[in-house]
Amino acid sequence: MPSTNLTFSSAAEHRAWLSTQAPLPQGFRVGTTRFEFIPREAPKLAKMTLTLIALDQPTPDFAAVFTKNAFPGAPVIVGRTRLGEPTLGAIIVNNKISNVCAPGGVETAERICAQTAKLLGISSQQVLPSSTGVIGWGLPEESMIDALPKAVEVLSGDNIIPAAEGIVTTDLYPKIRRAVVGQGSIVGIAKGAGMLEPNLATMLVYILTDLAIPRDQLRAMLKRVVETSFNTISIDSDTSTSDTVALVSSGKVPCDDTTAFEQALAQVCRDLAEDIIRNGEGVHHVIRVAVTGAPDSTIARSLGKAIINAPLFKCAVAGNDPNVGRLIQAIGKHVGAQNLQLDLSRLRVTIGGVEIFANGAFQLNPAKEDQLVAHLRNAELYASAPDKDGFFAPPVKFPPHERCVEISVDLGVGNGNATVLGGDLTHEYVSENADYRS
Amino acid sequence: MPSTNLTFSSAAEHRAWLSTQAPLPQGFRVGTTRFEFIPREAPKLAKMTLTLIALDQPTPDFAAVFTKNAFPGAPVIVGRTRLGEPTLGAIIVNNKISNVCAPGGVETAERICAQTAKLLGISSQQVLPSSTGVIGWGLPEESMIDALPKAVEVLSGDNIIPAAEGIVTTDLYPKIRRAVVGQGSIVGIAKGAGMLEPNLATMLVYILTDLAIPRDQLRAMLKRVVETSFNTISIDSDTSTSDTVALVSSGKVPCDDTTAFEQALAQVCRDLAEDIIRNGEGVHHVIRVAVTGAPDSTIARSLGKAIINAPLFKCAVAGNDPNVGRLIQAIGKHVGAQNLQLDLSRLRVTIGGVEIFANGAFQLNPAKEDQLVAHLRNAELYASAPDKDGFFAPPVKFPPHERCVEISVDLGVGNGNATVLGGDLTHEYVSENADYRS
Repeated sequence: MPSTNLTFSSAAEHRAWLSTQAPLPQGFRVGTTRFEFIPREAPKLAKMTLTLIALDQPTPDFAAVFTKNAFPGAPVIVGRTRLGEPTLGAIIVNNKISNVCAPGGVETAERICAQTAKLLGISSQQVLPSSTGVIGWGLPEESMIDALPKAVEVLSGDNIIPAAEGIVTTDLYPKIRRAVVGQGSIVGIAKGAGMLEPNLATMLVYILTDLAIPRDQLRAMLKRVVETSFNTISIDSDTSTSDTVALVSSGKVPCDDTTAFEQALAQVCRDLAEDIIRNGEGVHHVIRVAVTGAPDSTIARSLGKAIINAPLFKCAVAGNDPNVGRLIQAIGKHVGAQNLQLDLSRLRVTIGGVEIFANGAFQLNPAKEDQLVAHLRNAELYASAPDKDGFFAPPVKFPPHERCVEISVDLGVGNGNATVLGGDLTHEYVSENADYRS
Repeated sequence: MPSTNLTFSSAAEHRAWLSTQAPLPQGFRVGTTRFEFIPREAPKLAKMTLTLIALDQPTPDFAAVFTKNAFPGAPVIVGRTRLGEPTLGAIIVNNKISNVCAPGGVETAERICAQTAKLLGISSQQVLPSSTGVIGWGLPEESMIDALPKAVEVLSGDNIIPAAEGIVTTDLYPKIRRAVVGQGSIVGIAKGAGMLEPNLATMLVYILTDLAIPRDQLRAMLKRVVETSFNTISIDSDTSTSDTVALVSSGKVPCDDTTAFEQALAQVCRDLAEDIIRNGEGVHHVIRVAVTGAPDSTIARSLGKAIINAPLFKCAVAGNDPNVGRLIQAIGKHVGAQNLQLDLSRLRVTIGGVEIFANGAFQLNPAKEDQLVAHLRNAELYASAPDKDGFFAPPVKFPPHERCVEISVDLGVGNGNATVLGGDLTHEYVSENADYRS
């Protein structure tokens, strides 16, 4: 599934690699600015970054998909209307506050778009807003409008790193992936760490390309590609109210091979999806579950998701504990709860290539246990190191490697396949999320 | 929902109260024995307790409901066949290993039943087996058969405490609830700590009564009562392969008021269900969600469950952090994912009686924030205290109080109601489950 098999021994080394992914496609500039403000709802100093992605000329060729949460954020509500506009000229993103169900949230988002547009000399309907962060608070509209000129002032066509860094919240490092197609390129950045499950996640993804692909084709491609990338991942089964994947073409470079373009786009999205999981809140292990032999791919995916969202199994993986009983429990729970009529006697399950279940029974012995432990340890990203107060902060700010816990689940009854990605459940996740706003 | 509002300041005080709940109904005796053995799959010393519940005479009046997990344990497979037998004479329970999908598991369970029956002078079809613990390992059959005579030898009709203590795994304390109806009584014990969600849980519950209720009536009552008690709770959404609730009447005392009996039975089950949550793995806060105004009670319950199983909200509660955005996110995710056609503008949500969402928007201010924090702190069972290695063990072995985080969700569209119970997500849960088998 991943296109790379990288290892990094330091943040500097990771940063050097990111810079190879970062050249902006033609026709785009990015600028960011950071400022302090006092939220109304919890009066103490907070920081926000505004990230502006601007096109040299507005383009008709843009696409976006949004969260399925029934309480979409104001920027998502506004963003859906933007899809009906003839052209897009800029994207304005803020972190820290997500502008979800806050009184007057839509009006605030529109005023920020209008101010952005004014500074860029375009119309507000040409600006797509995005917000991520605390749900429920209102945006600091005045502070944001005061900060906007600075973001415009620093706009640069050099590389996408400032934007990749600007959109993050609890992410440990920026995420950038690039693909070259002919004379053009596709460059994507992603933000996402928790509240992450299918149907998009607390996930903001912006994909820029200079390759010319007409709007309708671009939108159809994005829909297909999201299905097999961002919609196959889950950190914690929570679905954010702000999820957005936007794809914008400046049209500066002719594209004579749309198949190659879609393949490259798919790879960028799959790699970013895996990056998001690897940098998921508290993730020590990326868990990849390949389900095969299902009656159809929908069942295959839902079963895969049930496994990567099973808390007890996720905890066992965190402890490098091959507690295979919890894996089978998760499969059995899903099959029982969904009342799927499956002949489970044909089920075959492996972890790291080691068969642990077949012919209706566990296939275990002490030698296998050792192999399973070794596989889990090999896939571990880092070990926990609590501070003296018992707070667990991840000790690394880069991805040390791209190895996964590899689980295969063959139902042996049909041709439905799906591969899903998730993470384990750790003290770092609890530390991050029991004390997130303080 | 609970019939009591108890507080305890020590394990001794809690124990004294438990003893008031513990007198055995007429016609039952219990005995336990504990022994050491070496599991085949992970060869190091382990301990198991065998718990025997014996009737003075086999009874036709017994009922049981079992897990819906598609990989039921061998005792569940055997137990389902026992429901077709004319009478029941004993229940034999072991902890430590759950006997699920282990090669030859059913045969082992049957041989243990046969040996139990032989010692009691009944037939093996009159013995109901139960197992809980590690999934995937095989039972130490010989050691168990060697230990059985001791369990028979110590059988006593005095009180149910030895059985309540014998069936536990990671529980911090035994759980017993009693109700008196006329001249008879109903006494229930429960085991359950993790892998706990609806449709039964890693939950073993045995309810004994001397009140005479015919089999058919008893079975119908148990089904009804389980729906509104054990099927409304969830610790972690995982559904055990071993869940069992058994209800046995010795028939020693005539029952002239079956309505009173069912009400008392329901109360015992609801109280035990809440006890299980309060003693759930790592639970710092019991969260009670009352959903009203739903189109129907099924939707009400599923929405309640979605809230108590939302990891980010559970973490926020653990941190006494009224992160109401995560609560609304959980509601929106469920409504969006299930594609429920709900007019969410009528949604009204309160926490501890404080309105936090109404008229389509959050209703927040700093004074409310303080009230919410106070409500969360008041419902906290204990604060985390990691040891020097960063391992979090619960500091109390008794329930300090029975207060809950009280959440009301009024959808305002219909008459469907449901109340569900869950717990928060804590470092103690991760410590327990990332290092469970070691």
